[in-house]
Amino acid sequence: MKQAAKPLLRALAGEPVWPPPVWLMRQAGRYLPEYRAVRATAADFIALCTTPDQAAEVTMQPIRRYRFDAAILFSDILMLPWALGHGLEYREGEGPVLPPLRDAAGLQALRPERVAGAIAPILETVRRVRASLAKEGFSETALIGFAGAPFTVACYMVEGSGSRDFAATRALAYSDPSLFQRLIDLLADATVTYLAAQIEAGAEAVMLFDSWAGVLPPAQFHEHVTRPTQAIVHELRRRHPGVPVIGFPRLAGLLVGEYAAATGVQAVGMDTAMDPSRVAQLVPPGVALQGNLDPLAVVAGGEAMAGGVRAILDAMRGHPFVFNLGHGIVPHTPPEHVAALVEQVRAA
Amino acid sequence: MKQAAKPLLRALAGEPVWPPPVWLMRQAGRYLPEYRAVRATAADFIALCTTPDQAAEVTMQPIRRYRFDAAILFSDILMLPWALGHGLEYREGEGPVLPPLRDAAGLQALRPERVAGAIAPILETVRRVRASLAKEGFSETALIGFAGAPFTVACYMVEGSGSRDFAATRALAYSDPSLFQRLIDLLADATVTYLAAQIEAGAEAVMLFDSWAGVLPPAQFHEHVTRPTQAIVHELRRRHPGVPVIGFPRLAGLLVGEYAAATGVQAVGMDTAMDPSRVAQLVPPGVALQGNLDPLAVVAGGEAMAGGVRAILDAMRGHPFVFNLGHGIVPHTPPEHVAALVEQVRAA
Repeated sequence: MKQAAKPLLRALAGEPVWPPPVWLMRQAGRYLPEYRAVRATAADFIALCTTPDQAAEVTMQPIRRYRFDAAILFSDILMLPWALGHGLEYREGEGPVLPPLRDAAGLQALRPERVAGAIAPILETVRRVRASLAKEGFSETALIGFAGAPFTVACYMVEGSGSRDFAATRALAYSDPSLFQRLIDLLADATVTYLAAQIEAGAEAVMLFDSWAGVLPPAQFHEHVTRPTQAIVHELRRRHPGVPVIGFPRLAGLLVGEYAAATGVQAVGMDTAMDPSRVAQLVPPGVALQGNLDPLAVVAGGEAMAGGVRAILDAMRGHPFVFNLGHGIVPHTPPEHVAALVEQVRAA
Repeated sequence: MKQAAKPLLRALAGEPVWPPPVWLMRQAGRYLPEYRAVRATAADFIALCTTPDQAAEVTMQPIRRYRFDAAILFSDILMLPWALGHGLEYREGEGPVLPPLRDAAGLQALRPERVAGAIAPILETVRRVRASLAKEGFSETALIGFAGAPFTVACYMVEGSGSRDFAATRALAYSDPSLFQRLIDLLADATVTYLAAQIEAGAEAVMLFDSWAGVLPPAQFHEHVTRPTQAIVHELRRRHPGVPVIGFPRLAGLLVGEYAAATGVQAVGMDTAMDPSRVAQLVPPGVALQGNLDPLAVVAGGEAMAGGVRAILDAMRGHPFVFNLGHGIVPHTPPEHVAALVEQVRAA
């Protein structure tokens, strides 16, 4: 199969490809001057995500610069609530603002039937990126689609914004567990629709970002993180058996082994705090790992970065592995540090 | 030894006391109307921490209400930078604000020789609380002193405020590792001075709060969390062999076992995300555990709280254990839920 020849897909299928494929979370973003130039022409962030020309262009920019092994759709985890008809606004310097969903009326106002239509421009972006990769000769670069995992998306919808601890969300999960579970289940269903459509448009792997999984105690982690992720993975595998799912349960800590085993994800994204050797012992054999250089080491560059890269490569040699960061690249990262990082990984 | 009869001290010494002793992080605080009444008479938060009459009074309030097994000195982890002569201000609704320490001049401006004098009112509070416990008949309640651990204190001093990820602090640790290490080492020395003085004033156990330990990758965790904690524990044990140290490496996740083994703490505080059974397998035998009910379960009360309490008690029976929360009690917690929690733990 021609597709399976791409290094990223071989690693996600369980092959210890070496040197490992490499891409970086938020590789398309503000640290690149060419991104800032496109961003300046867009009306706002949502317009950028829903204008296929622009979204495809910024998705391709880091591939042209660094020849990463994966392009990841330029979008945002909150485009799913947006597609469900929930309000969404990005305020400069403040991040996302949404109407807080805290009762049955808020849940009933969501419109799952809108999703298929609303995501059309995002799917068009996927198609254009896939075509650009082929046309521009990036035959080794795979295209990753993504969504926020239900718990993390629910965090923003219930809280109404970003937060340090999502206390209102966790409080609702305790005070009205039935409402919260219905929200999680609705999001899980919509996420299947959304990711299956991305796959049908050309995504060769998908990633589920559960950025706030780490705020939950073990029982709630099982209920709101593991259970819906398992449902999504199961249904995606039924519809698209060959397409791997990367799960990223950020700050899951001690729960990462159970997450990997119970959800059936093909790969686990490790956050910055995780010790790769230890995670390798905890996940089932054959599950690929991805991560986890501290994004701030890339800001520093030099030996701080090189030492961090070496430690991860040493720990992961012989394991199915995808080199990445432990969190998104930060805006003040010097682009030349990224070039040095890619060079070091490719020389492994 | 009369002192060793207190349930908290027996548990910290490795005895599986049952029902377990119980106290709650931030048990003296805004959820109590009697606290708000005292707080309203103080000029500001620092004045409250450094006025022995008031600080001792609010320390005692939750003991009178709930007869907790421990009183914890009412203070703040940033009183150590304050004692070092670093500026500190609490702004309403904004949290602590400090001058960001990011160069050698900032480090040189710290005045370790000021600490012994500056902490005098805090030590007077310790003495008064110890006397009040005896005088008011709380013969089973032990007094815990505390400090922030060096990394967490450094986070606030470098960042200049609270933060979601302390990016400036982590960036400095990469860009000027020598400066950052000197800051950590200075704080470790000052913490020994501070905690030894609390012990000499009457604290029967001490706790090191490392609230932001979880933002670090494994190598930095070892360097900035484990190493200084080990140094503090070692020196305190030399000076005060019988006094246990509780370490709280919040969000340490997979690194908690190494932390417990390498630092030599007598007890480990577990954050909300930790699975108590799993942590019990990772720490050396005899190390006591403390934690870790979700504070938001106490806000909810009822079965959400009771089920969480039961799960922790079931996991910890037979282990040296201190019941607590996984993070501080939140201001909108109904005081009667705390009463129900204590009752349930005492009926175990």
